[in-house]
Amino acid sequence: MDIGFIGLGDMGSAIAANLLKAGHRVRVWNRTPERAQPLVAAGAQVVATPADAFAGDAVLSMLADDAAVRDVVDAALLEAAPRDIVHVNMATISVALAAQLTREHAERGLHYVAAPVLGRPDAARAAKLTIVAAGASVAIDRVQPLLDAVGQKTWRIGALPQQANVMKLAANFMLASAVETLGEAAALLAGHGVGMRDFLDVVTGGPFPGPVYSGYGAMIAERRYEPALFKARLGLKDVRLALAAADEVSAPMPVASVVRDSLIEAVAHGDGERDFAVLGRVAARRAGQTAGDA
Amino acid sequence: MDIGFIGLGDMGSAIAANLLKAGHRVRVWNRTPERAQPLVAAGAQVVATPADAFAGDAVLSMLADDAAVRDVVDAALLEAAPRDIVHVNMATISVALAAQLTREHAERGLHYVAAPVLGRPDAARAAKLTIVAAGASVAIDRVQPLLDAVGQKTWRIGALPQQANVMKLAANFMLASAVETLGEAAALLAGHGVGMRDFLDVVTGGPFPGPVYSGYGAMIAERRYEPALFKARLGLKDVRLALAAADEVSAPMPVASVVRDSLIEAVAHGDGERDFAVLGRVAARRAGQTAGDA
Amino acid sequence: MDIGFIGLGDMGSAIAANLLKAGHRVRVWNRTPERAQPLVAAGAQVVATPADAFAGDAVLSMLADDAAVRDVVDAALLEAAPRDIVHVNMATISVALAAQLTREHAERGLHYVAAPVLGRPDAARAAKLTIVAAGASVAIDRVQPLLDAVGQKTWRIGALPQQANVMKLAANFMLASAVETLGEAAALLAGHGVGMRDFLDVVTGGPFPGPVYSGYGAMIAERRYEPALFKARLGLKDVRLALAAADEVSAPMPVASVVRDSLIEAVAHGDGERDFAVLGRVAARRAGQTAGDA
Amino acid sequence: MDIGFIGLGDMGSAIAANLLKAGHRVRVWNRTPERAQPLVAAGAQVVATPADAFAGDAVLSMLADDAAVRDVVDAALLEAAPRDIVHVNMATISVALAAQLTREHAERGLHYVAAPVLGRPDAARAAKLTIVAAGASVAIDRVQPLLDAVGQKTWRIGALPQQANVMKLAANFMLASAVETLGEAAALLAGHGVGMRDFLDVVTGGPFPGPVYSGYGAMIAERRYEPALFKARLGLKDVRLALAAADEVSAPMPVASVVRDSLIEAVAHGDGERDFAVLGRVAARRAGQTAGDA
Repeated sequence: MDIGFIGLGDMGSAIAANLLKAGHRVRVWNRTPERAQPLVAAGAQVVATPADAFAGDAVLSMLADDAAVRDVVDAALLEAAPRDIVHVNMATISVALAAQLTREHAERGLHYVAAPVLGRPDAARAAKLTIVAAGASVAIDRVQPLLDAVGQKTWRIGALPQQANVMKLAANFMLASAVETLGEAAALLAGHGVGMRDFLDVVTGGPFPGPVYSGYGAMIAERRYEPALFKARLGLKDVRLALAAADEVSAPMPVASVVRDSLIEAVAHGDGERDFAVLGRVAARRAGQTAGDA
Repeated sequence: MDIGFIGLGDMGSAIAANLLKAGHRVRVWNRTPERAQPLVAAGAQVVATPADAFAGDAVLSMLADDAAVRDVVDAALLEAAPRDIVHVNMATISVALAAQLTREHAERGLHYVAAPVLGRPDAARAAKLTIVAAGASVAIDRVQPLLDAVGQKTWRIGALPQQANVMKLAANFMLASAVETLGEAAALLAGHGVGMRDFLDVVTGGPFPGPVYSGYGAMIAERRYEPALFKARLGLKDVRLALAAADEVSAPMPVASVVRDSLIEAVAHGDGERDFAVLGRVAARRAGQTAGDA
Repeated sequence: MDIGFIGLGDMGSAIAANLLKAGHRVRVWNRTPERAQPLVAAGAQVVATPADAFAGDAVLSMLADDAAVRDVVDAALLEAAPRDIVHVNMATISVALAAQLTREHAERGLHYVAAPVLGRPDAARAAKLTIVAAGASVAIDRVQPLLDAVGQKTWRIGALPQQANVMKLAANFMLASAVETLGEAAALLAGHGVGMRDFLDVVTGGPFPGPVYSGYGAMIAERRYEPALFKARLGLKDVRLALAAADEVSAPMPVASVVRDSLIEAVAHGDGERDFAVLGRVAARRAGQTAGDA
Repeated sequence: MDIGFIGLGDMGSAIAANLLKAGHRVRVWNRTPERAQPLVAAGAQVVATPADAFAGDAVLSMLADDAAVRDVVDAALLEAAPRDIVHVNMATISVALAAQLTREHAERGLHYVAAPVLGRPDAARAAKLTIVAAGASVAIDRVQPLLDAVGQKTWRIGALPQQANVMKLAANFMLASAVETLGEAAALLAGHGVGMRDFLDVVTGGPFPGPVYSGYGAMIAERRYEPALFKARLGLKDVRLALAAADEVSAPMPVASVVRDSLIEAVAHGDGERDFAVLGRVAARRAGQTAGDA
């Protein structure tokens, strides 16, 4: 297919590379054009403006947040876009913005698909992302070959694009809650002289298998918060979005509120760019368990 | 070995049966003696008083809560116990009581081992419990054959018996937090018309594998709270104990506080004897999502 | 002075009336012009557009929320405004918008003063508002006669206009917390059969005098939520703004998070247009104390 | 009247002195007898055992907490007490213990009245306490002259003694919530450079008059936590008791849970013996606002 790709961060670059590998013709755009260079060797065409990328059969975008999306995908861009193009937005954005973009695309005869992903850059490079897609089936059908080229599975979970964003935010909320919970458990255990590693062995070998508990648990046990696989600042962003999405439908989420407060505290103490696992440091600091901490 | 067993609820009966199966001589006592009958056929000797059971090489107890333990294991019982006996307390009790029992046993030359278990009655019947043991190594060594007969693995996590209770409470706190989190996520999703089952497929197939998320998640998705595998009332008891243990060492646990409040709300609405998964009902009720609920 | 006034809700109308009474020449504008009629008899001149009102020596605005302000006070309006005019914004808006409006005014040589008020419509009618003003002293000096005509006291609390909004939001947070606290106390008391009125007598006669505890306390005691002096929906708006303002400076506010969740629950149950005191109903419902409730 | 008095801390000593001043014959007992000396000059008779004091027409007790009460008021003491004596317990104890003491007294033909007080030692010395009494009217009638001698007003709020304890705990919860709220507001204001003193002037001059907001507010504004008028450790004790009382009747109190967590954090940081106002320090620390703090 003849497609555009907007936003070449770690995730976007890896996804675009897989699209090229699958034989698609890809025009790429990024705010800082240097990030596009590695893709040129793989066959990408670097274009000068987002509008140049927003053309062809479809365009995928992977931008940082609402502000970045709004900055690029404005009225002018959409007006200039070819009728019938499918825009696949893979970013984790607010439900409100997703709903608004859906309207703005529809008004101009454009198709909008939300397709946020679960998985980190290594999964993106291996084309093993889990994709959560929502939007009109006919639109998703058209871009399914693209999604197949970058992920191991696409879940279609609704006709309203924003529903995919809701699901992504719910998943990230679960992640945030799990890390906060590990942090609180660690403070309880430390206070009683019980080893966090022993605890992790017991629970990950039993009721809580999987990478979240073993991975973040180990970081908390070792008080190791770098390199940041998922930055606290970005985790806070997503918890804010989950709370806003819940507020829209009048669903209180008290654990999300607690996690938001804890992440704000992490940022207040200069840990915003460190890994999410700093929630363990927040819990330890509250308990006065600061000896030995970096 | 020549042992006693006190407390024949679902868990205790299953454990005692496995001890008999392993060839140990077991004297059993239960407040309501009828519960002992099935074990007689397997070779158990029913005794008339707890003191009769608290004899031989070792005694295991599996009682409901602090009050039940305190009721049975009193000063008179301990005074009458044979010096050097090892008491293995498998119940989920408070850290404070565990510490006190440790002292009371030591003062009389008795050995106290805390060995709470992870696993439900089916795991107990299959001798596949995960055992978290703490206490003097020499005492645990002596009862290790007993623990091997009832569990698949014994984790030794400290010299102070109460440390095993702390770990058990931390594990149950994680469970409670996971169920509350699922409930809040379900309310968010429902508000936006996203299917909880789709969500569970995505997250249990990815970052959150394991029986907790799939099992409780399904109950929440189906608004099915019976039969109760883990009653809300007992979950509340354990969260209370976790908070008390954390308070002892001045560790705030805000998520545990939230879960405690939610479980109290479940009990207030008559759901105390239903499964823990009623945390999903609490979250739905708060969000005004009550249509279709039983 | 020759002034404009934008926004003739209950508060705005009362304030504008007092400005007329004090002898100022007032051009008034409101989205629904009928609201302006009562002021015409008092000497107001009704104008056709916000720009017509945004003229003269100063303009006061009292609009509902960020969206209403942003809708009226746009770039075109500011471009057309006479240089050196002082704009006094009395609305309770976000700190972020206040900061942005400050910049937008300054860039065009206009003066921006934030002057949110404490007090209800009856206080506004009696010219007894408490005014919290912030901005450049020279600008406040110029409009002080106007503020004197509508309030009993003006507190000047900073050079940055947004600081007045922060203070107003902090005050409304205190109000929200007090009402939530009364609601929780009422549930505790009711559960034990203690009369809420007795309790109010004791505490308002002692440590907690003043209208907040006696007024909202009585509404909670009587389960009377109408007429709404301060709607739950608007209370929620202000708590959201307080949390956003705190997030900007990385200050966690866990009680504000709790109150936000409770107000969302009130809205979910259809009580958004009722008085703030419905926080008492939320607390009672959580405790299963619903008998006798309307 | 011929009465006993047990417990001569700051509050108890002041109350006993007023009873002597009113002409009553008072036998006093305290664990550390030296504390009784100042009362001897005023006419008190020091007795050797609690049982000696638990005699005559009535006995008043003012002990520190549940453990202290339980330690002194045991089965032996009650067995030895003269039938028909009225025991007035003025301490802030748990609702559970109050209910149990009621039963234990009734079983032996003794009368139990709960009469916790609002007010600090200075109010006690001035005989200006506010007394919250509950129990059988006939019993309270008999000791009313004693209560009149030590307080300015007695509120009778129920026939069950524990109801007075519930009300006292609810009042202290309100206090704790107000201080936490002030602390959070202070962190919000500080983050935006708004003076806490200005804020206090505005709110205490308006919606929040009274000593709680002005007193604790000033301590928070000045980061002054000593001398401790109400120690954080004791505040934590009372919030725990309020939560336990609410749990008994299945009433969730999320703000109380937050305050409990904050007070635990204060204790974790060594501030347990400082004034309750250290809740302001907790809020500031969470927000990273530690510069200038002692």
